[in-house]
Amino acid sequence: MDPIQIGIIGAGRIAYVHSRNIASAIPFAEVKGIADPFLTDYARGWIKELNIPVVTEDYRDLLNDQDIRAVVICSPTDTHARITREAVQAGKDVFCEKPVDLDPQEIRRTLETVKSSGRKLQVGFNRRFDHNFAALRKAVETRQIGDLHMIRITSRDPSPPPIEYVKSSGGLFMDMTIHDFDMVRFLSGSEIAEVSAYGAVRVDPAIGEAGDIDTAVVSMKLSDGSLAYIENSRKAVYGYDQRAEVFGSLGAMETANDVPHTAVFSGETGIIQEKPLYFFLERYEQAFVAEMKAFLECLRSNTEVPVGGIDGLNSVLAAKAALESLKTGKSVQVSYGQEE
Amino acid sequence: MDPIQIGIIGAGRIAYVHSRNIASAIPFAEVKGIADPFLTDYARGWIKELNIPVVTEDYRDLLNDQDIRAVVICSPTDTHARITREAVQAGKDVFCEKPVDLDPQEIRRTLETVKSSGRKLQVGFNRRFDHNFAALRKAVETRQIGDLHMIRITSRDPSPPPIEYVKSSGGLFMDMTIHDFDMVRFLSGSEIAEVSAYGAVRVDPAIGEAGDIDTAVVSMKLSDGSLAYIENSRKAVYGYDQRAEVFGSLGAMETANDVPHTAVFSGETGIIQEKPLYFFLERYEQAFVAEMKAFLECLRSNTEVPVGGIDGLNSVLAAKAALESLKTGKSVQVSYGQEE
Amino acid sequence: MDPIQIGIIGAGRIAYVHSRNIASAIPFAEVKGIADPFLTDYARGWIKELNIPVVTEDYRDLLNDQDIRAVVICSPTDTHARITREAVQAGKDVFCEKPVDLDPQEIRRTLETVKSSGRKLQVGFNRRFDHNFAALRKAVETRQIGDLHMIRITSRDPSPPPIEYVKSSGGLFMDMTIHDFDMVRFLSGSEIAEVSAYGAVRVDPAIGEAGDIDTAVVSMKLSDGSLAYIENSRKAVYGYDQRAEVFGSLGAMETANDVPHTAVFSGETGIIQEKPLYFFLERYEQAFVAEMKAFLECLRSNTEVPVGGIDGLNSVLAAKAALESLKTGKSVQVSYGQEE
Amino acid sequence: MDPIQIGIIGAGRIAYVHSRNIASAIPFAEVKGIADPFLTDYARGWIKELNIPVVTEDYRDLLNDQDIRAVVICSPTDTHARITREAVQAGKDVFCEKPVDLDPQEIRRTLETVKSSGRKLQVGFNRRFDHNFAALRKAVETRQIGDLHMIRITSRDPSPPPIEYVKSSGGLFMDMTIHDFDMVRFLSGSEIAEVSAYGAVRVDPAIGEAGDIDTAVVSMKLSDGSLAYIENSRKAVYGYDQRAEVFGSLGAMETANDVPHTAVFSGETGIIQEKPLYFFLERYEQAFVAEMKAFLECLRSNTEVPVGGIDGLNSVLAAKAALESLKTGKSVQVSYGQEE
Repeated sequence: MDPIQIGIIGAGRIAYVHSRNIASAIPFAEVKGIADPFLTDYARGWIKELNIPVVTEDYRDLLNDQDIRAVVICSPTDTHARITREAVQAGKDVFCEKPVDLDPQEIRRTLETVKSSGRKLQVGFNRRFDHNFAALRKAVETRQIGDLHMIRITSRDPSPPPIEYVKSSGGLFMDMTIHDFDMVRFLSGSEIAEVSAYGAVRVDPAIGEAGDIDTAVVSMKLSDGSLAYIENSRKAVYGYDQRAEVFGSLGAMETANDVPHTAVFSGETGIIQEKPLYFFLERYEQAFVAEMKAFLECLRSNTEVPVGGIDGLNSVLAAKAALESLKTGKSVQVSYGQEE
Repeated sequence: MDPIQIGIIGAGRIAYVHSRNIASAIPFAEVKGIADPFLTDYARGWIKELNIPVVTEDYRDLLNDQDIRAVVICSPTDTHARITREAVQAGKDVFCEKPVDLDPQEIRRTLETVKSSGRKLQVGFNRRFDHNFAALRKAVETRQIGDLHMIRITSRDPSPPPIEYVKSSGGLFMDMTIHDFDMVRFLSGSEIAEVSAYGAVRVDPAIGEAGDIDTAVVSMKLSDGSLAYIENSRKAVYGYDQRAEVFGSLGAMETANDVPHTAVFSGETGIIQEKPLYFFLERYEQAFVAEMKAFLECLRSNTEVPVGGIDGLNSVLAAKAALESLKTGKSVQVSYGQEE
Repeated sequence: MDPIQIGIIGAGRIAYVHSRNIASAIPFAEVKGIADPFLTDYARGWIKELNIPVVTEDYRDLLNDQDIRAVVICSPTDTHARITREAVQAGKDVFCEKPVDLDPQEIRRTLETVKSSGRKLQVGFNRRFDHNFAALRKAVETRQIGDLHMIRITSRDPSPPPIEYVKSSGGLFMDMTIHDFDMVRFLSGSEIAEVSAYGAVRVDPAIGEAGDIDTAVVSMKLSDGSLAYIENSRKAVYGYDQRAEVFGSLGAMETANDVPHTAVFSGETGIIQEKPLYFFLERYEQAFVAEMKAFLECLRSNTEVPVGGIDGLNSVLAAKAALESLKTGKSVQVSYGQEE
Repeated sequence: MDPIQIGIIGAGRIAYVHSRNIASAIPFAEVKGIADPFLTDYARGWIKELNIPVVTEDYRDLLNDQDIRAVVICSPTDTHARITREAVQAGKDVFCEKPVDLDPQEIRRTLETVKSSGRKLQVGFNRRFDHNFAALRKAVETRQIGDLHMIRITSRDPSPPPIEYVKSSGGLFMDMTIHDFDMVRFLSGSEIAEVSAYGAVRVDPAIGEAGDIDTAVVSMKLSDGSLAYIENSRKAVYGYDQRAEVFGSLGAMETANDVPHTAVFSGETGIIQEKPLYFFLERYEQAFVAEMKAFLECLRSNTEVPVGGIDGLNSVLAAKAALESLKTGKSVQVSYGQEE
């Protein structure tokens, strides 16, 4: 069987991650082409190293390439929905980085197009493939913890993004918490029914001036009657803090951060362990491989993708509800119908 | 200097704890008398073992005893406020178990009486004296974690109290979370400005039928602009789960549960550690000693008590606000003025 | 039943520990008298605080006191054996600090005297009563770890004793490792059959000049066919390191050091835990209470003491064999017969 | 620059590991050929999957292939030395699995041939490239722990090899401890000067009947004056136990086992963590990649290999000395001269 040919749209950092993973870890697929209107020298470097044969400024060249079966969309967020629609209409299966869009209506429209095309769409919620969170999900699914009562997500970045990025990010909930909303949905197997959010500007006043927050607690009721809460910070000086706990009638399961090595130093100033792996590229390295492998195996075996368009939509709906709660000081129900 | 003579009002479990601690660990104080209208055989046993000379059914006998300088109030909650007032009016210093009362007005009235009496009142928020939480407080106070951004309190009981107790407890927030509200205040050194609460009945439907909840998440804004959240459960099968984290601009500090011993077994079924110390008597054994020692040292040196009546009041106000938020689905401001 | 009256011989630091523990934690016993020819002001202080009625320079006054049922020998090592003999001949039960003597023949002679007197002798191997090591012993005894294959003892002091002490200490094996030899015997329930020792001077050349070592590894064959090893250092800058592991056919059990609190700080320089409790008084505080309680309960119930004279003897024999191995470079069998 | 062409000699499990790692993780090298006289179906499978162009029964075909620059020797132990000599004489650089031979004289002869050929030889002590042990080495090298005083190596297999393998393995010290001897040398940066060994048969009597041991403690003096000890077992029911500690004048550094994930379950039976990664293929997966990458980068940059022939020789000499100590009951000096 010939390898599955892939097109990568966008040539930024995450495009490199996916291209490299396909090249090194997925023997039954190959990156045939890459499209980006503004190729950096750095991108030229890794494209050459990975021997990617086709390089173009226009992603439509990839959509028109009959050898290419699937595209991986790593372009700017505001192009995700449109390119997804074009891609499935061109007969390609799609792996799209999150979020599909910031506007639920635009996502819905896209999901309809995907549906009528009969093509597959997987959304890049890579954390579902992390070994730690997968262990939590398994503990819920196999009922090792019994009935689920509560979920905690601790999610803190090592440092805030540039203020320019903050301004166009859609805000903390849409940019950062969206991963955590998806994690609540993944771990629980339930939908988020209602949210209540508090936010604060504690890290950098410039973030507040840009109309955003940098510190947040979001609590939730889930559709199965259990509770959940997420806490976020844009800056933990000790690094990327990504932990969770599921708690139920038969016990709790909690994850710790991954570390570069297990060595612990005992010295005059204390007992000192290594800080967590620096940021998402390091922490979720294995998860990025696993999500792409899962996507491509679905293509190979023609089965359902593990993270569908609905996952892209529903986390955006939760983020929007959280934003409304933050503004109104009220608990807000998440509407999965046509609210606009 | 002669030992300080103490009267203990009530002869239940917590009365035994305080009596034993004074006898064994505080050389400059003695329990002279104990008052309880319904002495159990068990109580008679430990009263004898501890050689407590005076035993009476009427606590007024202790208030009238001129040798007795201070009383420790361990009677039922609905008598706390009244006996506190009578005791200070009789010239005694008072250590009162929490809560002082469920009704803020009744507490306020009591605090005024205490104030005009010139006597001392310490409220039994023993957890402030726990070695783990004290370390967190120190990290905030010394600014080891920099500016405070967030506090997390995880507080789960090993099993719910009898349903009869639940019915008269004032509800989860007033009975259980009240300790956690005080912990947020203690760790932050700030007041709770606003609360938002979600509750659920996940442990036992009978608790729901009694009009209470057994599972809760309460999020908070503090007066210094930081955020906090508490999560509670009436039943953690692995035991008493009492942990907290403070997070700030220079880092985080987090506590683990205390365990009976550090031994870890590695066997075919996994790497197994001991469960936490069973319940509050075991976990806070050292803290109960320390709070009583602190109280009695304040008497000896005529200094301010470390946990005053205001601490008893303000945690009740936070609990009331949480209950209102639970009912209304709105974020509720905690009113420290005369709200009723 | 009247409390058991105790005499304490010696008024140094360990005498204070035992006196205080009897006073505060053992309601069925009392310290009636204390004997020391050279009382320090510090000793006078705690003797007064504890209300010890009889103070004498001559321990024979305590042996002649008919009210006193048992003595606790805390005098210098070279008086232990002689006073033990005198005490049992005077009809007293004896708790003797370790070692009973440095000379096995002197110990044997003492044990014979104890035996013919019909009195009890407990030796102060307090670590057997430590919560962590007790958990290991239980795992061996209940066969949770199956057949025992190996024991590891890690035992490091926070800093070496004064060089004058080193010179008269009997050497590292007799002074420090002796506790660890006893621990191997306690954990295994077997005797030490053969030892092989390596030593080094790494901490302080003055220790080498005094004819001693400060760093050692001692490996052992036990009478049940399993292996054991002890490693010692006179100086661990991070504090008192007291850990052990038992390993067998069904798994391993390992202990960690006790810490003042569980709080962990995550900051820019790493994830930092508290150092172990400083030294033996802090680490074994609970064990000192438990060993004395065990001794006094044996007196009360007229049962066998948990740590007998043979335990005092056999650890000295192991220490002597280790010293011989260090000198000869050969594995040395431990002779439990009359080797001298 | 064209990729470095590699020949793999032997097609067993470890040959697959190296082939796969070169294919997926080292872009500047390619496996051109593989040689094995008895190819299994499993081997045919992965050879095909990895698209290895040349497959032959005779390794000499690879030695004669002018495109092939280096060979990786994964054949049976008793062929390592001979093929290494033939390969360097044919102008190939060599990566040879450990041990080079069981006979020091045969290794010496091989090292001389390597030396006169001017080719490179790296020995497969993969654990030097493990992230945990590398952190320990760094702590010694940078003097974070100050002067080195002691090293501990805990090394236990999940289960013993088949008894047939045991019989031809050269014994526990030569087969298993050899890795640990190398680790002592690596961590300390010193040579092993003197060894003393105890062994026992605790796991399986059949191992004893085959003339070998399954449980061992080996203590050592190092050339820098510090001490070290290794403990081994052929069977730890909880899995592959690979830990070490370095201890010195400024502190200690200790590693824990790697685990599949960090999730910890708290349930009624205790607090349960995952067991260590199963065996060497899982635990040292990253180390196998890193050692091969290091070897091939040395080829690319014409620099010294990080693990040379002397490392292969000296660990065998330590193993021989340990065996002699086990037999004689004496401490044995390790002779690095021409002892035979």
